[in-house]
Amino acid sequence: MKPFFQVKTPEEIFNLLELFPPLGREPLALEKALHRVLAEEVSSPEDLPHFARATMDGYAVRARDTFGASEAIPALLTVTGEIAMGREAVDPVQPGQCLRIATGGMLPPGADAVVMIEQTQGLDGQTIEVFKSVSPQDNVIQIGDDLRRGRPVLQAGRRLRPQDLGLLAGLGVRQVPVVHQPRVAVISTGDEMVSLDQQPLPGQVRDINAFTLPAQVREAGGVPEFLGLSGDNFEDLREKVRQALEHFDAVLISGGSSVGSRDFSLEVIGSFPGAEILAHGISISPGKPTILARVGPKVLWGLPGHTASAMVVFSIFVKPCLNRLEGELPSPIKSSLKARLTRNLASAQGRDDYIRVALRLGPEGWEAEPILGKSGLISTLVRSDGLIRIDRFTEGKEKGEWVEVLLF
Amino acid sequence: MKPFFQVKTPEEIFNLLELFPPLGREPLALEKALHRVLAEEVSSPEDLPHFARATMDGYAVRARDTFGASEAIPALLTVTGEIAMGREAVDPVQPGQCLRIATGGMLPPGADAVVMIEQTQGLDGQTIEVFKSVSPQDNVIQIGDDLRRGRPVLQAGRRLRPQDLGLLAGLGVRQVPVVHQPRVAVISTGDEMVSLDQQPLPGQVRDINAFTLPAQVREAGGVPEFLGLSGDNFEDLREKVRQALEHFDAVLISGGSSVGSRDFSLEVIGSFPGAEILAHGISISPGKPTILARVGPKVLWGLPGHTASAMVVFSIFVKPCLNRLEGELPSPIKSSLKARLTRNLASAQGRDDYIRVALRLGPEGWEAEPILGKSGLISTLVRSDGLIRIDRFTEGKEKGEWVEVLLF
Repeated sequence: MKPFFQVKTPEEIFNLLELFPPLGREPLALEKALHRVLAEEVSSPEDLPHFARATMDGYAVRARDTFGASEAIPALLTVTGEIAMGREAVDPVQPGQCLRIATGGMLPPGADAVVMIEQTQGLDGQTIEVFKSVSPQDNVIQIGDDLRRGRPVLQAGRRLRPQDLGLLAGLGVRQVPVVHQPRVAVISTGDEMVSLDQQPLPGQVRDINAFTLPAQVREAGGVPEFLGLSGDNFEDLREKVRQALEHFDAVLISGGSSVGSRDFSLEVIGSFPGAEILAHGISISPGKPTILARVGPKVLWGLPGHTASAMVVFSIFVKPCLNRLEGELPSPIKSSLKARLTRNLASAQGRDDYIRVALRLGPEGWEAEPILGKSGLISTLVRSDGLIRIDRFTEGKEKGEWVEVLLF
Repeated sequence: MKPFFQVKTPEEIFNLLELFPPLGREPLALEKALHRVLAEEVSSPEDLPHFARATMDGYAVRARDTFGASEAIPALLTVTGEIAMGREAVDPVQPGQCLRIATGGMLPPGADAVVMIEQTQGLDGQTIEVFKSVSPQDNVIQIGDDLRRGRPVLQAGRRLRPQDLGLLAGLGVRQVPVVHQPRVAVISTGDEMVSLDQQPLPGQVRDINAFTLPAQVREAGGVPEFLGLSGDNFEDLREKVRQALEHFDAVLISGGSSVGSRDFSLEVIGSFPGAEILAHGISISPGKPTILARVGPKVLWGLPGHTASAMVVFSIFVKPCLNRLEGELPSPIKSSLKARLTRNLASAQGRDDYIRVALRLGPEGWEAEPILGKSGLISTLVRSDGLIRIDRFTEGKEKGEWVEVLLF
């Protein structure tokens, strides 16, 4: 058996990912930009709002006209009209006067505050009583309160959320500069694999990674394409990888990444001019037999054939790799939660162990029940809600300990 | 001012959502089924695996031939050949013999365990030494270990994750019965609103909800369509809602949901034959002026015009409503995390307050910094990472208290 010739720690893998620069950019219509990554900083081209607006239904007033007003001694104001929504307010408010205004209406000249309708009472259709004084700016958004012209509002590298699209809409940005989504080729290998269209004979199994890996690529923001199943032979696999390198930004090969006589991924990748093997073997479990390589700007991952191992390696390493190609700034906010471990877990030192857990609500909050099973089982993946990590400097975790569960 | 005539608590709203049955179902190719909701329980049509498989590279052996083996006194076995991957293993293993086998290979007749290659050494090309005994079933997955024929494997109402697709692929399921995605019409109202194509004049603002609400619909699994902007008048809005009721499963109207003279949503919804207003007003902040109604099986939401309020109401109520239309079983596992509040927060009793927070990592873990701002501001939404809730039975939360942050 050949050894793994370049085993790396997880931290070394993360550092290696910095070798890959973000892909190019494209302009995209705002309504299509959800979950895409912003390619450059956006600054506000204008003040938002560009006029002072009421934030409540009520009356536009000169605040000083209400000073001292109370239930016992209300201020009396003359209503001279109503602000029309969506029109410029031009008629000024004179001392002792007010104008009806609705939420979002433009504050008229002379007025500097809005009295809420609930704090007034109509007297004769022309006059209102105001029961509470307001200060200048009360119930008003001033020009530029939301955004000031020229200020940076969204950083490059942000994956756009609904509210970010809202901000861009508020600024009148119709086209957004975003980074290309990584196009990812997925290749399966294994003489024992058959595609979903075939009934497996004794000794054969259906190719599961053809479905799990593209789905994970999609969740990570990439655009997957399954290039098919290769037998365990050099020529067949090389031809598929050659096609992948021609048309895609990243290549995932599942199976054939270990050190056995049927493992051709390393040899195939190494056969391309300029290929560089960055890692062969990562000190984690499951997922040790993983290859990271590059051919020019293209990234290649050789993943374990076992679905559970391939999914773990994808979650921990391939996803951040694709996010980096897409130019996304790493965010520390992950979909994770804290739970109490329901049993002791031993772990080998010298490697990071990733253990699948099912979550359930107990009397003190979430409980994480380790799902132990042979790594070839797909049913254990389906029963699990997340992963916990026992790092390589730790011998294990104890029952009752709080652990962080990465939702999966 | 007309009163809100049917104010409901959040719990009452959640109960009302049960009035709406799930939509119809459709068969979908497995590779398109990511994040779709399963319409019926799936049982395993076969045993998985359908033959006993090796989980390690090594030798298929009769376990009893290795009993007592150690480094000092290895067991000697004759290698009679190799299991070909993807073929039925037919040649039996006789006492004292073994066959080379790779991970995933079919266990041959007579063999009941696999010895890992690391625990052997070749002697003369024909004979190996085994340094450690194995028990029957060691390093082997038995028939049906993963899934037993006829057992339910996936529940109706599950939103399919990558590993769920993998399971279905493993069972040979090519077409998946899923529930239709809700088609959701989005309508904006407001005389002061202009579309993104226009430069707003004094008194006018751009329609932000035309972008935030469709994006939220998409994140919730629905298929949004923006039907345009209606002025604050009955006829214009009624015509848009009529179209929406004809072609969509759900209708979201933003703006016009309150009790002012410009608020036509309630009147418009009530004008359709059979319309039933289920709620007008919810005891939350922001978001009180919300309408929930139905016309036959169609659900209508009147949402506040302020983007922040509309987004909160969507997150808390509309999303579960759409999930219910899609037949998704509610899951208690949410994207949330615990954080320490950085300042005291007062809250009015009698309503649930939702407060936007920014997250940052402090020395003791996550800290949640409340982002206070007038609800008309879009910039506060962009600065916030999540929402915390102060329920209506609580007067507030104290600095340093642990709170749950719903990621936003």
